[in-house]
Amino acid sequence: MEPPRRESGSWIYGWHAVRAALSNPTRRCHRLVATAETAGEVQKLLGETQARLLPDFRTETLDRPRLEALLPKGAVHQGLALLAEPLPQTFLEDVLAELPPAPGPELAVIVVLDQVSDPHNVGAILRSAAAFGARAVVLPEHGTPPASAALAKAASGALEQVPLIRVANLARALDRLKEAGFWSVGLEEDGERMLAELDLGGRVALVLGAEGEGLRRLTRERCDFLARLPTSGPIASLNVSNAAAVALYEVARRRETKIRP
Amino acid sequence: MEPPRRESGSWIYGWHAVRAALSNPTRRCHRLVATAETAGEVQKLLGETQARLLPDFRTETLDRPRLEALLPKGAVHQGLALLAEPLPQTFLEDVLAELPPAPGPELAVIVVLDQVSDPHNVGAILRSAAAFGARAVVLPEHGTPPASAALAKAASGALEQVPLIRVANLARALDRLKEAGFWSVGLEEDGERMLAELDLGGRVALVLGAEGEGLRRLTRERCDFLARLPTSGPIASLNVSNAAAVALYEVARRRETKIRP
Repeated sequence: MEPPRRESGSWIYGWHAVRAALSNPTRRCHRLVATAETAGEVQKLLGETQARLLPDFRTETLDRPRLEALLPKGAVHQGLALLAEPLPQTFLEDVLAELPPAPGPELAVIVVLDQVSDPHNVGAILRSAAAFGARAVVLPEHGTPPASAALAKAASGALEQVPLIRVANLARALDRLKEAGFWSVGLEEDGERMLAELDLGGRVALVLGAEGEGLRRLTRERCDFLARLPTSGPIASLNVSNAAAVALYEVARRRETKIRP
Repeated sequence: MEPPRRESGSWIYGWHAVRAALSNPTRRCHRLVATAETAGEVQKLLGETQARLLPDFRTETLDRPRLEALLPKGAVHQGLALLAEPLPQTFLEDVLAELPPAPGPELAVIVVLDQVSDPHNVGAILRSAAAFGARAVVLPEHGTPPASAALAKAASGALEQVPLIRVANLARALDRLKEAGFWSVGLEEDGERMLAELDLGGRVALVLGAEGEGLRRLTRERCDFLARLPTSGPIASLNVSNAAAVALYEVARRRETKIRP
């Protein structure tokens, strides 16, 4: 065994996550590791890569136990892992700068997460945000997970597509979104109106809270609407990533209906 | 240390899952374990229990490491775990027998899962099924996860509310649902129509496939409709539990709209 080496960067594993990272021009990669079974596919991936391969970049074929020793316990790696630098930070202003001057005719959706701490949930929300065309996912710097391997895996490549924006103060970010023409809709089990009853055209920030605790007071006060989903029964609450998917769907469904005759 | 004892049953952990199990009259319980911090709450829970406490039933206060030694690694137990017998098996016929003769005016939804193997996904789908009032979740006996602790935790109590029905042959179950007046709607990325365009009144079976592979041919052929969601972009596919939540929402939203003036 080689002595452990201090390495910069963090691991991304699983096909979707690694393939997406390698097609992202802003990714800077150190090391790509595969099992013998996947090594052929990996060469093909590398041939098409748009990511930046750093001077120390190398590929290796390792047996399963040695590959697994590099990753968190229980990681579903599918025989493939990439060591890469974290993505450059994106700021809310960067995303807002890409929108035409408000009020524009086009719809824009941003997801805002208040204290959602489970990396699997944040990853799954990024994935839904990508699928439904959201512009960004915003969360507070404190108490939220880093862009870990588990988050990247759950995002299934969406970490490369949708900016994950960390802000020092979530209430201030909501104020900034309002200035930029966004309506903020907080999702709450006892929200005053059904989400489907709201006018969700234009620019919308969908605000979701931690499971159990929901939105913090300062966050709730910044919302223009508090909306609920048509759930009922003794278990009326959804997992936060499922609630986010439903809210993103509701916006996308209506945009689709408007475009279609 | 006591010598390890052979115990019957399996562990359920976390507040929602344990509380729901203890309020389920069909649960048969062997052992309830809590940390010192949660022991007070646990006594209150036990006072209200409707589950059957078996003759060997006992409660114990253990320190965190000893409680964790009983559970899978990394279990988010919140200081509480219950050893219980699996629920009695529910059959599709039991659920169908509870419906009024078809065609009835009332809406009924059943979720059918084709080769969804991740227990967290199955658990999260059970939870959404409970929240949106679905009658059952049906899956094939083979290749699908048992009602494990991880599944029960992700279901957040819904395992006690919504029957998880295992069938020997999924295609035959879809035939049986058709006889009982259900329309089968398969969700696929390239489905021919938008889910929101379908008439989802009456009885609906929402059929979802494994991520990546989608529905098997025999399952797809049994569907009356193949529907897609308004996703787009390079990552157009949702996590299967998110897709299930969205489909259940779409049915619930329209039921809600019909009831409301």
